[in-house]
Amino acid sequence: MASSFGHSFRITTYGESHGGAVGVIIDGCPPQVPLTEEDVQVDLDRRRPGQSDIVTPRKEEDTCQILSGTFNGITLGTPISIMVKNKDQRSGSYDEMRTKYRPSHADYTYDAKYGLRAWAGGGRASARETIGRVAAAAVAKKVLNYLAPNLEIVSYVKSIQDLVADVDSETVQFEDIESNIVRTGDPKMVEPMIERIKEVRSKGDSIGGVVECVVRGVPTGLGEPVFDKIDADLAKAMLSLPATKGFEIGSGFEGTKMSGSEHNDHFKMKDGSVRTLTNRSGGTQGGLTNGENLVFRVAFKPTATIMTEQPTVSTDKEDTELKGRGRHDACVLPRAVPIVEAMAALVLVDHALRQRGQNAPLLPDSLLPSIHDVL
Amino acid sequence: MASSFGHSFRITTYGESHGGAVGVIIDGCPPQVPLTEEDVQVDLDRRRPGQSDIVTPRKEEDTCQILSGTFNGITLGTPISIMVKNKDQRSGSYDEMRTKYRPSHADYTYDAKYGLRAWAGGGRASARETIGRVAAAAVAKKVLNYLAPNLEIVSYVKSIQDLVADVDSETVQFEDIESNIVRTGDPKMVEPMIERIKEVRSKGDSIGGVVECVVRGVPTGLGEPVFDKIDADLAKAMLSLPATKGFEIGSGFEGTKMSGSEHNDHFKMKDGSVRTLTNRSGGTQGGLTNGENLVFRVAFKPTATIMTEQPTVSTDKEDTELKGRGRHDACVLPRAVPIVEAMAALVLVDHALRQRGQNAPLLPDSLLPSIHDVL
Amino acid sequence: MASSFGHSFRITTYGESHGGAVGVIIDGCPPQVPLTEEDVQVDLDRRRPGQSDIVTPRKEEDTCQILSGTFNGITLGTPISIMVKNKDQRSGSYDEMRTKYRPSHADYTYDAKYGLRAWAGGGRASARETIGRVAAAAVAKKVLNYLAPNLEIVSYVKSIQDLVADVDSETVQFEDIESNIVRTGDPKMVEPMIERIKEVRSKGDSIGGVVECVVRGVPTGLGEPVFDKIDADLAKAMLSLPATKGFEIGSGFEGTKMSGSEHNDHFKMKDGSVRTLTNRSGGTQGGLTNGENLVFRVAFKPTATIMTEQPTVSTDKEDTELKGRGRHDACVLPRAVPIVEAMAALVLVDHALRQRGQNAPLLPDSLLPSIHDVL
Amino acid sequence: MASSFGHSFRITTYGESHGGAVGVIIDGCPPQVPLTEEDVQVDLDRRRPGQSDIVTPRKEEDTCQILSGTFNGITLGTPISIMVKNKDQRSGSYDEMRTKYRPSHADYTYDAKYGLRAWAGGGRASARETIGRVAAAAVAKKVLNYLAPNLEIVSYVKSIQDLVADVDSETVQFEDIESNIVRTGDPKMVEPMIERIKEVRSKGDSIGGVVECVVRGVPTGLGEPVFDKIDADLAKAMLSLPATKGFEIGSGFEGTKMSGSEHNDHFKMKDGSVRTLTNRSGGTQGGLTNGENLVFRVAFKPTATIMTEQPTVSTDKEDTELKGRGRHDACVLPRAVPIVEAMAALVLVDHALRQRGQNAPLLPDSLLPSIHDVL
Repeated sequence: MASSFGHSFRITTYGESHGGAVGVIIDGCPPQVPLTEEDVQVDLDRRRPGQSDIVTPRKEEDTCQILSGTFNGITLGTPISIMVKNKDQRSGSYDEMRTKYRPSHADYTYDAKYGLRAWAGGGRASARETIGRVAAAAVAKKVLNYLAPNLEIVSYVKSIQDLVADVDSETVQFEDIESNIVRTGDPKMVEPMIERIKEVRSKGDSIGGVVECVVRGVPTGLGEPVFDKIDADLAKAMLSLPATKGFEIGSGFEGTKMSGSEHNDHFKMKDGSVRTLTNRSGGTQGGLTNGENLVFRVAFKPTATIMTEQPTVSTDKEDTELKGRGRHDACVLPRAVPIVEAMAALVLVDHALRQRGQNAPLLPDSLLPSIHDVL
Repeated sequence: MASSFGHSFRITTYGESHGGAVGVIIDGCPPQVPLTEEDVQVDLDRRRPGQSDIVTPRKEEDTCQILSGTFNGITLGTPISIMVKNKDQRSGSYDEMRTKYRPSHADYTYDAKYGLRAWAGGGRASARETIGRVAAAAVAKKVLNYLAPNLEIVSYVKSIQDLVADVDSETVQFEDIESNIVRTGDPKMVEPMIERIKEVRSKGDSIGGVVECVVRGVPTGLGEPVFDKIDADLAKAMLSLPATKGFEIGSGFEGTKMSGSEHNDHFKMKDGSVRTLTNRSGGTQGGLTNGENLVFRVAFKPTATIMTEQPTVSTDKEDTELKGRGRHDACVLPRAVPIVEAMAALVLVDHALRQRGQNAPLLPDSLLPSIHDVL
Repeated sequence: MASSFGHSFRITTYGESHGGAVGVIIDGCPPQVPLTEEDVQVDLDRRRPGQSDIVTPRKEEDTCQILSGTFNGITLGTPISIMVKNKDQRSGSYDEMRTKYRPSHADYTYDAKYGLRAWAGGGRASARETIGRVAAAAVAKKVLNYLAPNLEIVSYVKSIQDLVADVDSETVQFEDIESNIVRTGDPKMVEPMIERIKEVRSKGDSIGGVVECVVRGVPTGLGEPVFDKIDADLAKAMLSLPATKGFEIGSGFEGTKMSGSEHNDHFKMKDGSVRTLTNRSGGTQGGLTNGENLVFRVAFKPTATIMTEQPTVSTDKEDTELKGRGRHDACVLPRAVPIVEAMAALVLVDHALRQRGQNAPLLPDSLLPSIHDVL
Repeated sequence: MASSFGHSFRITTYGESHGGAVGVIIDGCPPQVPLTEEDVQVDLDRRRPGQSDIVTPRKEEDTCQILSGTFNGITLGTPISIMVKNKDQRSGSYDEMRTKYRPSHADYTYDAKYGLRAWAGGGRASARETIGRVAAAAVAKKVLNYLAPNLEIVSYVKSIQDLVADVDSETVQFEDIESNIVRTGDPKMVEPMIERIKEVRSKGDSIGGVVECVVRGVPTGLGEPVFDKIDADLAKAMLSLPATKGFEIGSGFEGTKMSGSEHNDHFKMKDGSVRTLTNRSGGTQGGLTNGENLVFRVAFKPTATIMTEQPTVSTDKEDTELKGRGRHDACVLPRAVPIVEAMAALVLVDHALRQRGQNAPLLPDSLLPSIHDVL
């Protein structure tokens, strides 16, 4: 049981890849926010299979329905239920999976945990599960428009295998990313990345890469000591995504090679605000946002499903072999971009609401004694 | 508010570095487990300042008291409260911090969040906060002895700056690590690492590095889809530690350069068990443990406190300068090792209890129909 | 936000009376439990409007769909989503409610809380919201069949206004209750209660009463000190139901008139078990079940909707009048019976799973030292 | 495990009656609230044994220490840990309890749940556990002074056995209650109640009664649909107290005898506010506060400890007898009054913070379109 995420903006997702539907309930959304199915659909379309010729050709329209929580296009403050029906189910493609565990998939571990699994498709471990997250994040972004009007989240493919994009996280725009089907932020890398994906796919193999995400215009003070630090919650959010193997923020693993005198971000007043001259911290100090950009990276391993014969074992515990079938992404990165963005939005809206609940001023400024005088 | 961690074995910590005490309440610990203050003290001593000549010489005895939850040395099933009083407080050392923000520390972000901070020391952002975690983990390890008798957690310094230890995670022993004061697993790296720390300290500078952790003898099926995956919870646990900037499991960021045919872990029967021939997954597939070793790495940035003058701003929002004072670690890695181990233990015991609650068999095997026949 | 209930068997409900659907997600259900839509439907039919001539004649078929969490009729351990589409919406009946607050309804308080409300029907405050609870409880009861095979929950109308049923909670059977449309446990009261309801309805008025619930065959030790006592969670569960104003367990309010020497339940061995000679405790001591029957009562106020003109105020904050319209229950008690039973089942299954998670033996009896020897 | 209560203002308590200490951690308290140990001590003194000659003469000074979360007398926003050391332990008085279960106490159920218990005293089931609640509530009331400046909580003894106090909940003052040692609101009942308690005590027997609580000046809209209704959370809070057997709000059980036309609270504008002409709802409609007074009652059974020989069973499962020893309250009501008040304060502060988090306006009024125009 862990189908819920978030403390104050709390989502609960459900759905196997080949059941009746996948979806999400959002609990704690503020009232009076305009919200329609179109608002949600636009993001679902960005994660949808079949959207370009470098992603899986599986046809899933993924049309959402808002079942509750709005009235005449406005949120009520009550739980918002969003559902996407499952279609295009060719469970015949999966017959062999009934009795054999796909390597580096969750078939074996689900069986080990629960004693059974929904073998017709990936079940709950399918990437289809992320539909609920993306739908919820579409709502989260609407709320963030009010709570943090300057906040913008841009994520993009930073690398595919050894192909590394050169992107300026300070300036890269959402439109830059969406303008190319591989969703990278470096125009020079678009074609090489596309070529690489097509080449690998033609061999029946798969590849991975890194998604980078920047959040600009972040209010200061978001994050909760000591366990729900903003970086801790982002790390959990990202590692909860299928196929992820790593998370780093700011200077990350490379930063471990620096000395403190090189690494520290010095403070400097700028236009009346406390700012830092560098951003090796990646926008967070002590687990709380410091007003600089949040910049983090997420590692995605190569897709486990490949079209070549691989050694494996059967549910009867015999050695055997299995060859991937069906229609799969040779590289999940282009479709991972909106999902990383979605998880970032969910973390941020939750922390923005938590901050308001606990730390909004108890008294108007005019009535407050100066705390610093007292201390 | 986020002083609690865990769902079924739930800890809640408290304490500023310069208040009355730091400590933890553990809720949900199984009854009938032998537990004394000595069991806890041994781990507190491993994280304690002043334990060797490469860590901060601050003298803190950190003697723990168990205030509740045991009776005649046995756990009652009720909340276990463990307290360590604060001592050795030289708040005079901190006077300048009252009015100046230390670069890359949490001084500014706490002020931005709460409108005030405990300026006499690091407050809640002090590494002293981890005492509660380590104390709770000492209890967790006692419980794991019963729930997963073969489980062992070994963590060690994998690198300090560019000094990389060569460690075999399959075989490295706890005693190997504890036998050297830098807590690395590579005998050849002990002296170079110690030298590097002393050299950096002599300059008033600081350095970071990477801690690697291996968990062997893990039961299969631990972790909860889809948000509380074992890797997601480990990532959160580690990024909630002070000074961490990254987490990776199994092949991690390097794995993003491989192809699926290279990366997949093929299954193979061995002694009647389903095993994998390689372990690029790092012991988790679909967010659930697969019985192979959990292997992950955590990046620690160089300590923010350095003894040289640095530009910063004052609480009055003026540009100024600040020089570090007091007694600090030039490199936190040796003391980070038991803390990483502690967080791993807390994640594992929580998931072991969750697994038992939901997924222990409802019927004896003899009465169960074969699920695979039904499906 | 508080659409979730339960710690280990956790339900999250959604739905307004006049939106797309109402439903529930159940998270934490054990795997391998047979479950079909028929299992759920039978309980939904017991709470359905239009089931007899003393309840509202509104036609709602309330047909459920299981959207996830089962595979070939068996639970997977993953979240179970159950949906009931809304039909028969005559929102025309509700036009006046757009601008006027119905007395003793939630119209005004929802507006005060959220700044708007779904005025076309009762919105989230409609009794229709309980569909998700009843559906979840149907699943809970399937699980309890395994976790506590002797457990049985029987609830019944104890009183309607001054008409008090004489029921022996030790022996009353589920079939006795379901055999009469008013769902009382006293055959002599069936006709008087039915007559009273019809008489009140003919005047356009409404009445309330008390539901009593007994749970027999309860395992000992369920309930969690100190806040999630079994009686505390039952009280919350019942007071979370629409129209409830009171809860008492065992001797309840009457017991406050007794002395301790009269009230105490003396222990006595019986067939090798520790039992009590009386049950004024109502099956719980120190918040934990003691193996005796849980017996509690829930007070339901008279339905707020009546067909006579009443003073009220408008959304423009003017005094005005309003007369109830539409098709409503003059007495909710017969339909409240399965809902009280449902909430009891949800509390019990949650505590049974929690108990197993924390307190299942860590060692086989044969390996355990005698705790009582140690203590 | 259930030592925590509250969602946004979350308390976690610990402590057996005869361990090292009892106490509480408060997580989520807003920063910048003045708070000293004196603020807490005054309420602890009101629940303390030995405060008058009708309560237990046990001497417990119950002196509190604030271990964290404040700095120079002001809350930091970080967890507040408050501890009270245990003293005056005469565990010799309890030797017989090691092997015999006290009737209507939690001795047997704790053994049944955990397989052992802290037999030297009541352990976690001791009323001493409420110290943490009262300490936390002292903090809660400080916060409520800011969040809801007009809010006042007054609780008092409504009845002891058949002695019923006549109290006007609209006007009764805190000082009226505290001015008499039995803490009732009816001057005429002070002496009779005191006499009754002394008489019963002289016989070695015990008695129970009802505490009534009124909360005036409540903001509208507090409470969370559908499970955390204000009445549901109050019910849980009260039933989580030792010795409670019932809860009712507003018209309660008596209200079930009325018709809807008698029971409904008609709305009426008054001084520009929406008010009700009667308050049978007890201040809550649809689970949300409507601005009228919250009025509820809590049933306390007679104390289980009496000084006469009673049949019981031994831990060896043999029939035996046991006579109460030690110093106990013959009537807990006078000391229950501040505890009921405490739990009410904890529920209210939690809901006030939750309300602010989710439902504080997203835009200034001037920028908001009129929602009612849109709908």
